[in-house]
Amino acid sequence: MAEKLVVIGGVAAGMSAASKAKRVNPALEVQVYTDDEFISYAGCGLPYFIGDVILAKQDLIAKTAEQFARQDIAVETSVRAIQIKPADKTVILQRLNNDEIFATSYDRLVIATGARPFVPALKNLDLNGIFTLRTIHDSLNIRRYIAEMQPQKALVVGGGYIGLEMIENLILHGCEVILVERAPHIVPNMDEDMAQIVHDYLESKGVSVLTSTDINGLVGENKIVCAAESSQGNIDCDFVLLSTGVIPNSEIAAEAGLALGVKNAIRVNERMETSADSIYAAGDCAVTYHLLTGQEVYIPMGTTANKQGKIAGENAGGGNARSAGVLGTGIARVLDLEMARTGLSENECTRLGFEVSSRTISAKTAARYYPGAGDIHVKLTVDNNSLRVLGGQIVGFSGAAKRIDTLAASITTGATVKQLIDMDLAYSPPFSPVWDPVLIALNQFA
Amino acid sequence: MAEKLVVIGGVAAGMSAASKAKRVNPALEVQVYTDDEFISYAGCGLPYFIGDVILAKQDLIAKTAEQFARQDIAVETSVRAIQIKPADKTVILQRLNNDEIFATSYDRLVIATGARPFVPALKNLDLNGIFTLRTIHDSLNIRRYIAEMQPQKALVVGGGYIGLEMIENLILHGCEVILVERAPHIVPNMDEDMAQIVHDYLESKGVSVLTSTDINGLVGENKIVCAAESSQGNIDCDFVLLSTGVIPNSEIAAEAGLALGVKNAIRVNERMETSADSIYAAGDCAVTYHLLTGQEVYIPMGTTANKQGKIAGENAGGGNARSAGVLGTGIARVLDLEMARTGLSENECTRLGFEVSSRTISAKTAARYYPGAGDIHVKLTVDNNSLRVLGGQIVGFSGAAKRIDTLAASITTGATVKQLIDMDLAYSPPFSPVWDPVLIALNQFA
Repeated sequence: MAEKLVVIGGVAAGMSAASKAKRVNPALEVQVYTDDEFISYAGCGLPYFIGDVILAKQDLIAKTAEQFARQDIAVETSVRAIQIKPADKTVILQRLNNDEIFATSYDRLVIATGARPFVPALKNLDLNGIFTLRTIHDSLNIRRYIAEMQPQKALVVGGGYIGLEMIENLILHGCEVILVERAPHIVPNMDEDMAQIVHDYLESKGVSVLTSTDINGLVGENKIVCAAESSQGNIDCDFVLLSTGVIPNSEIAAEAGLALGVKNAIRVNERMETSADSIYAAGDCAVTYHLLTGQEVYIPMGTTANKQGKIAGENAGGGNARSAGVLGTGIARVLDLEMARTGLSENECTRLGFEVSSRTISAKTAARYYPGAGDIHVKLTVDNNSLRVLGGQIVGFSGAAKRIDTLAASITTGATVKQLIDMDLAYSPPFSPVWDPVLIALNQFA
Repeated sequence: MAEKLVVIGGVAAGMSAASKAKRVNPALEVQVYTDDEFISYAGCGLPYFIGDVILAKQDLIAKTAEQFARQDIAVETSVRAIQIKPADKTVILQRLNNDEIFATSYDRLVIATGARPFVPALKNLDLNGIFTLRTIHDSLNIRRYIAEMQPQKALVVGGGYIGLEMIENLILHGCEVILVERAPHIVPNMDEDMAQIVHDYLESKGVSVLTSTDINGLVGENKIVCAAESSQGNIDCDFVLLSTGVIPNSEIAAEAGLALGVKNAIRVNERMETSADSIYAAGDCAVTYHLLTGQEVYIPMGTTANKQGKIAGENAGGGNARSAGVLGTGIARVLDLEMARTGLSENECTRLGFEVSSRTISAKTAARYYPGAGDIHVKLTVDNNSLRVLGGQIVGFSGAAKRIDTLAASITTGATVKQLIDMDLAYSPPFSPVWDPVLIALNQFA
């Protein structure tokens, strides 16, 4: 009889695991359960769906259950996994439409339960007009609310990527936006100097930006939010997005006795194996490892979820794949401004005890004289002893940020400044100055 | 008394050498001579100056002689170097405005005489309406001719980068364009399969593309070109651009007894030293070395000229800089289509005796559902034995081509497919699919 793989979770990591396992082991029976109605959707596209940049929610769905069925991968939606019994190799599940509880056995199990928004404990959270953004349902709720209530003044709590991307899309709906960040600067995974460029840009576009500011509660009128109480006083608003990070959906793993790691994410090794026999975890519910430090980290990202899912699936199918670790590479755009980072920020380096030097340059994304050349700022952080590049940060316009991949590739291979300083990067006036900004930055370490 | 550096040539390599030498050795007397009226100009911008994308020729000039004078770098224009006497450490020069001949001595000499267009020996080359494009003067001549004569049917001979870039700019002037290439495919530094994408695109935009076609002569009427005789019959045209490559201006070096290398370019070592004591060469007049093969190559590029100039200048100033070699990275755009390449093409690999595998993928430059996502084709060539990536080629739209730098960085460090296959590249819907096209291509080798 065929071995059976059960996957809990139907988005990036879960569906990648299911697909890969079936590819490496076509005889495997593959069964996916998800508590959502939607599967295989592009969560990172949701801000643009809200902004009507993407018009149909179908566009966000990479592949339907019917398409997976044709690959002999069974997907059942609206089913919640409620207990894992590792000793019995069994999962207990519940069908959400009729509350029916049933058990299924597995030979291999992949936990890909993802993460959920962290919601700070604020008073009056039950008012209308207060949202988080994680699922297609969240985005449909926000779309409906914006269409019906036409909010004028949106408060975005949390200045990470989702908060920033939502600013753009709220402005598209005509909202005035106030961004509140608890930390001393927005874009907390970048250094303060680079984040300040984003901060200044947002203010130049009419966004109010309050840093080092706590939200303490929400105020309503007729059950609709009308203000937020902050450490800087009351902020009038008729829409609130809480984008204050996510927490891994690891409770089901913890209850089954699986080891958790940093930030309570499920601990996995480089093969995506959990502490329990035949159980893998992947995606936003699991830890990963930093390529530069080897340290266990929790950096939930769509890219990592896909890669971890692929690795878990390959191993669950009988292969032997290993994760190389991540660099925490990230990219985002807010209005016309692009930002990206990879490796370790200067701040992270200092915290980790690296002795580093950082240099920041300003240049153009195309030849200075070429129409549309955008400003670009590149910050590089280099280890003083090994001279290895440890981190890069880019903020700018007009194709600035995707240059981060040149640095990500460089850092991945452990390259030193000396190896990279005269790299033969591509130049022609519409694409770059003759010295690409990445090279200009590297040359500061000559 | 201060040592004296003489530089022959005032564009990319020459001015980079002068500037760098002065920076590393401020006591050095630095004297630049150029036979041109213009210095320090962006030759790669000339097609866009012709297309009126760049409106003022001043915009193409990075720095004027006055600005160099303020750095204590003396530049004399319209002076031709006519003889180098290595035994006497002397250069004989001629002022072009009054034919005055004079000698100057040097302690160090940098030859940065560049290259000139290769002009095939065709009959009736003296007709009006026939151009090459290399200098600001060339571009002014073309601009004047287009403005006065309003040519309707332009023949571009040679399907390399300059020919392709000029197609775009001739179309901006309302010309119908015929592109003729002698080789079996256009973009000769790419493989035929990738070049075919460019070929098909050009045809879809109304450009006639004739490959494997020789131009044998030109036909005139009233001293103006009216047709070209080709191996495919006569081609009516009232404008001809000959963009059939360049040849190094190395005669002055050869006459002085300096060794020449491949394609008659001046032979230099990794320190940019020629075979003569205290004489360096840099830029389009000199050879370079391929990073992957160590072979001497002649790949004249603005980027390489700047780097070689910098290295020659540093060494002429008393430092010790070395060139790491080049990857032959190149990028160009024709209308909306972008193309780039780095490392060795499959064709080059085969010629050089590498046993390689190539894979080509088609993907999108942004998330599939994101408006404006462009088609992108990525071809990777990998060594079968070492599994090192040897070359990459990209053709596509909407920010496709600059991704070549991710591959250039990877190849520079000697990385294998295994090291790169799960690299943490940047993703967010406006910038990339969740698997960047570069990763999709790498994954074909899993």
